[in-house]
Amino acid sequence: MIFLDNASTTSLCKSGVENLLKYSQELFYNPSASYSVGFENYKQIQGVKALLAKKLGVEFKNNIIFTGSATEATNLAIFGSYRKNWKKAVFSAGEHPSVYNCSLELEARGVKVEFVDLDQSGAVDLEKLSKALDEDVAFLSIMQVSNETGAINNLEKIFALKQQKCKNAIFHVDGVQAFGKLNVDLTKFNPDFYTISAHKFHGPKGLGALYAKNPQKLKPVTLGGGQEYNLRSGTENLPAIMALYGALNELKETDFARVTKINQAFKEELKKNLEPKISLKIMEGENFSPYVMSLSFKGIKGEVLQNLCDSQGLLISTGSACSSKKSGNRILENIGHTQEEIVGSIRVSFSRETTLEEALEGANILANCTNTLWRNTR
Amino acid sequence: MIFLDNASTTSLCKSGVENLLKYSQELFYNPSASYSVGFENYKQIQGVKALLAKKLGVEFKNNIIFTGSATEATNLAIFGSYRKNWKKAVFSAGEHPSVYNCSLELEARGVKVEFVDLDQSGAVDLEKLSKALDEDVAFLSIMQVSNETGAINNLEKIFALKQQKCKNAIFHVDGVQAFGKLNVDLTKFNPDFYTISAHKFHGPKGLGALYAKNPQKLKPVTLGGGQEYNLRSGTENLPAIMALYGALNELKETDFARVTKINQAFKEELKKNLEPKISLKIMEGENFSPYVMSLSFKGIKGEVLQNLCDSQGLLISTGSACSSKKSGNRILENIGHTQEEIVGSIRVSFSRETTLEEALEGANILANCTNTLWRNTR
Repeated sequence: MIFLDNASTTSLCKSGVENLLKYSQELFYNPSASYSVGFENYKQIQGVKALLAKKLGVEFKNNIIFTGSATEATNLAIFGSYRKNWKKAVFSAGEHPSVYNCSLELEARGVKVEFVDLDQSGAVDLEKLSKALDEDVAFLSIMQVSNETGAINNLEKIFALKQQKCKNAIFHVDGVQAFGKLNVDLTKFNPDFYTISAHKFHGPKGLGALYAKNPQKLKPVTLGGGQEYNLRSGTENLPAIMALYGALNELKETDFARVTKINQAFKEELKKNLEPKISLKIMEGENFSPYVMSLSFKGIKGEVLQNLCDSQGLLISTGSACSSKKSGNRILENIGHTQEEIVGSIRVSFSRETTLEEALEGANILANCTNTLWRNTR
Repeated sequence: MIFLDNASTTSLCKSGVENLLKYSQELFYNPSASYSVGFENYKQIQGVKALLAKKLGVEFKNNIIFTGSATEATNLAIFGSYRKNWKKAVFSAGEHPSVYNCSLELEARGVKVEFVDLDQSGAVDLEKLSKALDEDVAFLSIMQVSNETGAINNLEKIFALKQQKCKNAIFHVDGVQAFGKLNVDLTKFNPDFYTISAHKFHGPKGLGALYAKNPQKLKPVTLGGGQEYNLRSGTENLPAIMALYGALNELKETDFARVTKINQAFKEELKKNLEPKISLKIMEGENFSPYVMSLSFKGIKGEVLQNLCDSQGLLISTGSACSSKKSGNRILENIGHTQEEIVGSIRVSFSRETTLEEALEGANILANCTNTLWRNTR
């Protein structure tokens, strides 16, 4: 089985597995317990937060909140910040459902919500963003890397625009497809909130994290025993937090370059083996994450292609798994894909554990399946 | 190390560990993905829900919602049910912080909130409950087993009272210290919601479940990709769900009788070894869970005793771990404990994996530590 759907989830890495086991079994103690081994576990969690902060380029000052998912982290950033006097909130049109559906709820609460179009590259259109930002904006949310296309938003420029147009607006960045993949340095775009998902980079499922510049300004969205600075109650998921620690320690500076090569090799192999008559559109360029690739085959149905690949042992996606059961075209449509391009689109995504051999074999299966479908429908 | 703080958390059982590993590594696929192995995982989750429903004595009709914790499940039950026209909500005075702090939030939203006193046994006072219930009550929440004392509430009678006084009120039961320990049959008290925690009975951390009689009446509290019937978005925590499956399969009909014996043996051994002059109060009786025991030693500080036991290799609690960093006396105070009894109280809690040897050794350490403190302070 060749797994090229790493943007949807990844397997847990070796160090992650070791820690998951160790803290589920021998060191399973409740970090809120007042005996020594409980307190020891509490300190371990603080250590993971400190490492996470370091990897984000910021100082650790109780500004990392662990949640049960990145979706929950984003919900906390948005609804924990929300105040009744909010006039306007601005989002890119490319946001993941976890942000998009929160934006619709803000709209239902009476906030004026504006979605800024993406340009043809899939990044948010900076001119349009500039026009959307004004003194009324209380909240701005822009993802770092698109889960659909891999397009990277220029967060430095976006932060500069925000400072110019709505200095006091809260700035949230969904970093789910960026952190653990790209080099992330929060000091470069200074977000108020940054959302992280552990299972997207070989960390555990069931764990998200929210960086909050000013956690004291947040209202909790889950009430209870007071864990996570009283912002996210519930017994700390210690095994998952320690598994994340394992995954963080496995990240290498060379990962990005490796995945870039694999991405390149995949494309070359695909093109080499594809019937020359089949028109292929790949979203690519300078500002794309090598981890995610959106492709579209003219005259082919992505869903059928995905099914055929599945039967041949290649796992890819027609859209993001998070929205695969919905109409997944909101984002590609906004970029300006034609209906035919949308229907013919698939997503291939890599991870630092993807090997060159897997990528090449995957490209071959994809080419063969596309060729078969092409011939069968002529 | 003797671990007698199983009401705070438990280690993951053998079958749980096996599944946690299997679904973190080989079968890690996103259950929302549309390829076959993803869909296979989705079906696995449905299977776990069906088993959970069976263990609750109800038919599975998409009425189980997995969350990141029991706290989150309770928050979903309360705030997902909340409507602006709610006049009154009633809670037992013994509720866990995950319910209690939600009740305070309801109060802040303008709902009249009433807390019904506990009787001396630690159960909710049924006469007082009857007086508190009237047609204005929109929501009633009563825990099944107290995490502080092990007292069991008579939910059948409580349901009958509710039907008599406020038929349309929503009835939530916090089953965190009951499910996986007592024989639970929801048809006997017919709750609208029932909250379950996996890590309290050798299941995984980071997983709660909410049984909802009418899930379609709930509003989501976390928005995103639409998982869990659109009520709790976020990638499904498959490894934890499958680990819960392992834990459910390890539950035995004989567990309750075993733990009852262990509880009895612990008490006898403790009394046998305790200085006869030390006055000991144990909360016990017919309607107590054998899994949780609240003890109070006159003239001894529970916190100091807990520390000394810790140094001797026995892990117990002064209150529930979930509230150990707060003033943990709200509940014991309500029962009518004197200040001295509260200061002198500790909690001992067992699990189906606790052995008789551990219980006896634990009782010995506890007796010795109490004796030492008693002598040192005379």
